[in-house]
Amino acid sequence: MSTSWLDEIKWTEDGLVPVIAQEAGSGQVLMLAWMNRESLALSVQEGKAIYWSRSRGKLWRKGEESGHEQIIHDIRLDCDNDVILLEVEQKGGIACHTGRHRCFFKQLQGDQWVEVEPVIKDPDTIYK
Amino acid sequence: MSTSWLDEIKWTEDGLVPVIAQEAGSGQVLMLAWMNRESLALSVQEGKAIYWSRSRGKLWRKGEESGHEQIIHDIRLDCDNDVILLEVEQKGGIACHTGRHRCFFKQLQGDQWVEVEPVIKDPDTIYK
Repeated sequence: MSTSWLDEIKWTEDGLVPVIAQEAGSGQVLMLAWMNRESLALSVQEGKAIYWSRSRGKLWRKGEESGHEQIIHDIRLDCDNDVILLEVEQKGGIACHTGRHRCFFKQLQGDQWVEVEPVIKDPDTIYK
Repeated sequence: MSTSWLDEIKWTEDGLVPVIAQEAGSGQVLMLAWMNRESLALSVQEGKAIYWSRSRGKLWRKGEESGHEQIIHDIRLDCDNDVILLEVEQKGGIACHTGRHRCFFKQLQGDQWVEVEPVIKDPDTIYK
């Protein structure tokens, strides 16, 4: 399979691209993470989201420990070729490492960020 | 109004934060852009999306020329405090500068990016 589609992406100086994961069905935006060329190619190959962890400096197979994998249904690229949007099935219904459904659980109310979404599962029981 | 909520955001070295704009109602992810401290404060103050244009190095009042403003309904921050999600009403139904509803109109099909969403309005008639 040709890899020229990877060359069309405008990678950052660090060789990364921001990736938005949106849940199929609900349409909820679950998280934003980053991929490099290798992790995107692997994601397409395996049909599962494999990100690049900037903090750990290595491939991050989403759900590897937790089982909370993201099965890819659709992959989009934006007009500027520098942002990717994934439509995913979120295994276990938990995308966030805090044990919540998704990472966007803090809502701006007046001049405060308020946590408005519940913890579904204690992170201590998710990560052994 | 206190601005400590702005201090809670983990800005990049360049003082920016990525911002996802999602359409209220349809749930479609329209675009990803960037904000700095000033543009986010102004967005909250005016209730409309005001981004920071990295290419032009200045405030980008979305819809200023085109009329395609984004009215903010909800503002979320993620678990790591480094990504913002806006729920917006997209005026004119066009978020993308190509005249399409949204920026994510290229779909990966096999090893090719294919444009799968129509141009609603010729950009030449949007920007005078």
